[in-house]
Amino acid sequence: MSDGSRTTVLAAGELHGSLADPLMEVMNFLNEITSRYPRAISFGPGRPYEGLFEVERIGEYLDAYKRHLVEELGRTPDEVRTLLFQYGRTNGQIHELVARTLRNDEGIDADPESLVVTVGCQEAMFITLRALFGAPSDVLLVASPCYIGITGAARLLDIETAYVPEGSDGVDPDALRRTLAELRAAGKRPRALYVVPDFANPTGTCMTLDARERLLELAEAEDLLLLEDNPYGFFTRTGQVLPTLKALDSTGKVVYFGSFAKTCFPGARVGYVVADQPVRAADGTQRLLADELSKVKSMTTVNTPALSQAVIGGMLVANDCRLRDANKPAADFYRTNMTVLLDCLDRMLPPGRREAAGISWNAPDGGFFLTMTLPVPADNELLERSARDHGVIWTPMSYFHPDDGGSHQIRLSLSYLTPEQVAEGARRLVGLLERSPT
Amino acid sequence: MSDGSRTTVLAAGELHGSLADPLMEVMNFLNEITSRYPRAISFGPGRPYEGLFEVERIGEYLDAYKRHLVEELGRTPDEVRTLLFQYGRTNGQIHELVARTLRNDEGIDADPESLVVTVGCQEAMFITLRALFGAPSDVLLVASPCYIGITGAARLLDIETAYVPEGSDGVDPDALRRTLAELRAAGKRPRALYVVPDFANPTGTCMTLDARERLLELAEAEDLLLLEDNPYGFFTRTGQVLPTLKALDSTGKVVYFGSFAKTCFPGARVGYVVADQPVRAADGTQRLLADELSKVKSMTTVNTPALSQAVIGGMLVANDCRLRDANKPAADFYRTNMTVLLDCLDRMLPPGRREAAGISWNAPDGGFFLTMTLPVPADNELLERSARDHGVIWTPMSYFHPDDGGSHQIRLSLSYLTPEQVAEGARRLVGLLERSPT
Repeated sequence: MSDGSRTTVLAAGELHGSLADPLMEVMNFLNEITSRYPRAISFGPGRPYEGLFEVERIGEYLDAYKRHLVEELGRTPDEVRTLLFQYGRTNGQIHELVARTLRNDEGIDADPESLVVTVGCQEAMFITLRALFGAPSDVLLVASPCYIGITGAARLLDIETAYVPEGSDGVDPDALRRTLAELRAAGKRPRALYVVPDFANPTGTCMTLDARERLLELAEAEDLLLLEDNPYGFFTRTGQVLPTLKALDSTGKVVYFGSFAKTCFPGARVGYVVADQPVRAADGTQRLLADELSKVKSMTTVNTPALSQAVIGGMLVANDCRLRDANKPAADFYRTNMTVLLDCLDRMLPPGRREAAGISWNAPDGGFFLTMTLPVPADNELLERSARDHGVIWTPMSYFHPDDGGSHQIRLSLSYLTPEQVAEGARRLVGLLERSPT
Repeated sequence: MSDGSRTTVLAAGELHGSLADPLMEVMNFLNEITSRYPRAISFGPGRPYEGLFEVERIGEYLDAYKRHLVEELGRTPDEVRTLLFQYGRTNGQIHELVARTLRNDEGIDADPESLVVTVGCQEAMFITLRALFGAPSDVLLVASPCYIGITGAARLLDIETAYVPEGSDGVDPDALRRTLAELRAAGKRPRALYVVPDFANPTGTCMTLDARERLLELAEAEDLLLLEDNPYGFFTRTGQVLPTLKALDSTGKVVYFGSFAKTCFPGARVGYVVADQPVRAADGTQRLLADELSKVKSMTTVNTPALSQAVIGGMLVANDCRLRDANKPAADFYRTNMTVLLDCLDRMLPPGRREAAGISWNAPDGGFFLTMTLPVPADNELLERSARDHGVIWTPMSYFHPDDGGSHQIRLSLSYLTPEQVAEGARRLVGLLERSPT
């Protein structure tokens, strides 16, 4: 570009429409605030705690996977080399280990051939949306508020999204039924609902067993696919572990997304989708939805990196394909953090006082997130004041709403702090709230 | 799915249209033949040779990258842990090493901020297409025949593709100019041309320096972006190394795709795109195209796996960011294979004899591929007979053509065989041709 006058400049308005969607930049202000106030305690990131990661163990996991290939599967050294270095099977090489883990941890009986091992759960969602949404009238339903990864993927693919309000038990079934009827009346086809039954991001909501069963009945009655995402299911705080929709599903309505980002580590970028629905062609032949996803994946990333699969595979092997047990220390850690936060808030803002101040919060049974309702608008201005004057950062819940929803709510994430930071962060947060004009 | 009658069955016709496109299944027959005749010598796969991979070195490369982080960049052990295990920068963590390598190997002076490190070159192509193609009238131009990865990605995104015939110097400039005029007359907007100047897949064609300069002039005159893909540039057989379009580009028309699949190893799935074009918003502010690609990537794979980046980063560090030198053994290997094949063919089918038989081939100056023209249709039937009766496999060139083109041509790939296999494969191939009715 030696000659400025002849330099090519692209017009933003001529790029794909998704790039101008505020949705795609929603986290930018949060990131900017975080970098401007590095000493603030941040309830922002949904990242897993790093204290449990050990760099030294990467080699051990790789070795465990190599031993598995040689000793359990009888692979020769040349075959091991091919598996680690060469292009590989589009749908992955650790699908049998993942299937075994799903059986042990979730009671989900998945044919390994129905699994696609993906570059994080994000790619699983992306390729599934691409495959399932064929007509311009196909609509994706999501809860409101909703995780940005799914709505962002839909936006990239020009897939229309409809929002269904979430109640304390998850998506409100009456509102869902109403939305389905409205969409159909408008000539649209509700194709699938994205749902996180366990400790949803951003609200922390968990569906009861009854709510899960009712949602499955509704999905069957309405011929609606359910895209179940389960990144936080291991991290229970109270009560019993509830079965996933996939484990309860008797009619094949559920496509199940899994992630190793929180249960192993995010840097591997390994997730998967169980896509065991038969797909029938016009000539009557059938194949699995996973086989269709394979075509999409081959044009997106070709295959999931072998090294990432090897390290995650090694972690599965080393833990006898039981990640729930292996995650007990992590679950304890997040449980402690949530309990510390709830205790601190309870002590500093006892019931009478918080009611008078117009402050409330939920008490999730697990996961990384808690929702707090404020008496004042929880906007970027308050966030900046909070970071600057009180040294505490959080996420405006409005970021996760498609419209004006969540204007007085915030998401508090507990996963990336120590218990001491959580306690100090709670103190600072209460300081902010007590100094905010109501 | 306990009750068969209530099992959800999806209709193939209701999935995304790309899944029914023959393009997406084109390699299936080849794969099937390969698995049915495992003892045949296959000129099919475009995979790099594996004999140069060493499993033991993965740990060394990881260590080299860790040392680079600590000793060169001054990272603390906690920061190293975060870089290897946690979610990371969307556009990658080895962008500065890649920029240094591009400067050393290609004379391309790329701002590291203009680089996006991707999950293989396939993701680079995919996210670039998504960002650049905004309107339904935007058309992607490709050579005919063309690499399936780019046309497949376009198909997933419902991007219209137009084909321009390739001559012996690459895309025919007159045909390109005509196609541009026709598209514009039809109300379309030719947005970009995908081009592989060095030893293209599938033909092996290499553009001369003059052809490169003329293409750049044409791109500027016609306001056409060039998407340059360069997986094979290091693997020269004869003649001098020619500059890439990106290195010659003085007006910013070239978006450059790179891949470490052939120069390091495919299993890492690491590629990149240099997207240094400024993008101007309506309010006059500018950012880099790479920043726009970041939004797309964050909704596709979030970030490229840290382990893959670390191992490739370690290979770059260990080779002083000079991959061209490091690839001399690989270049020698492929050069030998190409020379062996050309010598064998020349000896078994000397000029008079091949002309009489209606057989010809090109003699690429490098790369993995050679094009052969046959006197008979090079279809799946001939391929099956070739594998079954003669023990030799190749790829029908028609797989890479959008229409009826290439019906009498085959692609011979030399990258995945030893020289001995190449010689024996050539013998078998000539055996097939001498027994085929003309």
